[in-house]
Amino acid sequence: MAVNQNIVLMVGGVGGAKLAYGLAQLVPPERLTIIVNTADDFWHYGLKICPDIDTLLYTLSGRVDPINGWGITGDSVTTLETLKNLGEDTWFRLGDKDIATHLLRTHWLRHGQTLTQVVAQLAQRMGIGATVLPMTDDSVATIVETAEHGELEFQEYFVRHRWQPKITGLRYDGSDSAQPTSDVVQALRKADILLLGPSNPWLSLMPILALAGMRELIQSLVIPRVALTPIVQGQAIKGPAAKIMQELGYDVSAAAVAEFYGDLITGFVYDTRDNPLNLKNVQSIGFDTIMKANSDKVSLAQQILDWIAGGGVV
Amino acid sequence: MAVNQNIVLMVGGVGGAKLAYGLAQLVPPERLTIIVNTADDFWHYGLKICPDIDTLLYTLSGRVDPINGWGITGDSVTTLETLKNLGEDTWFRLGDKDIATHLLRTHWLRHGQTLTQVVAQLAQRMGIGATVLPMTDDSVATIVETAEHGELEFQEYFVRHRWQPKITGLRYDGSDSAQPTSDVVQALRKADILLLGPSNPWLSLMPILALAGMRELIQSLVIPRVALTPIVQGQAIKGPAAKIMQELGYDVSAAAVAEFYGDLITGFVYDTRDNPLNLKNVQSIGFDTIMKANSDKVSLAQQILDWIAGGGVV
Repeated sequence: MAVNQNIVLMVGGVGGAKLAYGLAQLVPPERLTIIVNTADDFWHYGLKICPDIDTLLYTLSGRVDPINGWGITGDSVTTLETLKNLGEDTWFRLGDKDIATHLLRTHWLRHGQTLTQVVAQLAQRMGIGATVLPMTDDSVATIVETAEHGELEFQEYFVRHRWQPKITGLRYDGSDSAQPTSDVVQALRKADILLLGPSNPWLSLMPILALAGMRELIQSLVIPRVALTPIVQGQAIKGPAAKIMQELGYDVSAAAVAEFYGDLITGFVYDTRDNPLNLKNVQSIGFDTIMKANSDKVSLAQQILDWIAGGGVV
Repeated sequence: MAVNQNIVLMVGGVGGAKLAYGLAQLVPPERLTIIVNTADDFWHYGLKICPDIDTLLYTLSGRVDPINGWGITGDSVTTLETLKNLGEDTWFRLGDKDIATHLLRTHWLRHGQTLTQVVAQLAQRMGIGATVLPMTDDSVATIVETAEHGELEFQEYFVRHRWQPKITGLRYDGSDSAQPTSDVVQALRKADILLLGPSNPWLSLMPILALAGMRELIQSLVIPRVALTPIVQGQAIKGPAAKIMQELGYDVSAAAVAEFYGDLITGFVYDTRDNPLNLKNVQSIGFDTIMKANSDKVSLAQQILDWIAGGGVV
């Protein structure tokens, strides 16, 4: 067990949040920090919306809709239906309970708080003990280049077009100059274990890794740095990871994901359903990485921590 | 009947909206313009909220809650309850359907539309034929001076403190420089009849009358200019009008309201429950001004138009 170790997890949305939930059941809250992608964030009807942060907050606080893996369980859509009745194209789902989060965040941002301060307050109000950190307080925006529709803002690509357009390229606008926050840098410097969640490497983790100085900072950490595969048996566990890999010319496999992370990681978790990997300079192990029940999330987190504690990866 | 006359009505909230509803049943939409107070508008959780405009839109479009006279009938408060569960002091009611209006307005304002353009679009989407004009696109804010709480923003006074603090003074911040919109000026110049609704003279109509050049413009109009009393038998029909008159040192009577409007008006409607008035230079008449059922609203509007058409006031 890792009760005396500082664990930092980097995530995007649903898959990463599930692992965060598992870790939070095992690790004392003051030892657990989750760094979250913000390159999917956008303004919608004057509200600041942070899909990955919200998925994490809702998951950690037990609010999350267990079917979708995002949104609040039992939420209604009265406001959204009213917008539709007023003639709006309601392509982005706004739940009534969910809107409360967006209102509070927008309110605090408009009053001069940083996103880091806002998320800390939201986490505290939702009763979350672990530290949740947006990757940056600066603006970064994932732009998806497609042949069919040209350049798409991320939510346009992901939600409006249901990630169907073929990707010809990806950009993280602003990432050259965007700084990881000092909280993020400090958490990483004090980390004993770094985990990269089973999130989409190109859409969720790359925006974090692309921040100014981030790759160098991670490479400088002499600690176990372990990534989890989002690919099982050539398929994405959820979402467009496999489709994107294919469109960007990668082999759709856990090995290709490990190779993509390269020397940022020292360990890699693939799924037991796949053949064992033999990676250069990276220790690897197979676990059941498909988290359905809450017990699956805790079990996977436990196995990873045990593997690291047992010296399987350094 | 006044089907060939351009009618302009100036209003605040509930009472004025009721008269507007009555007029809208009698007057062709292209002949009816309602100029609305915006000095109660405020930003709340990042949303732009315009209480008087919304009351008017909801009333004219048949959406209004018939019990309160404001808000949308059958609205739920899921978002508000969620905010409360997150530790917020939810002193201002936000209905879930109501929030859709605020989101649309905020969205359009943030994209550079004027409030006038925003309200025109909202009215159109709600199926309202009459022209609804915010009094100004500039910022005006009613500030209530109280002994107990010092200066209060209007909604703090009106909603949070339920208009209980004693008023020592009133200001309309920004009104010296705020301009009525060109749409407002044009509507007034083309008006054949000007009505001042039975709204609170100090809280709802004075902010309109205090706009730069507004008094002079109204005085220059050689048309019937008729105000309705908000005071019946020494009581306000709704809200703090009587209480404010008393606190500001006025006699609480229809006559004192007529006197307050002075030479801005040429006609005045008091309630049949009160004694007939004998005003200098202002024609007056008594009608049943308490509008409960929709038929009351139409009936009052009809009587006023008939009185004017019959030459009762010039």
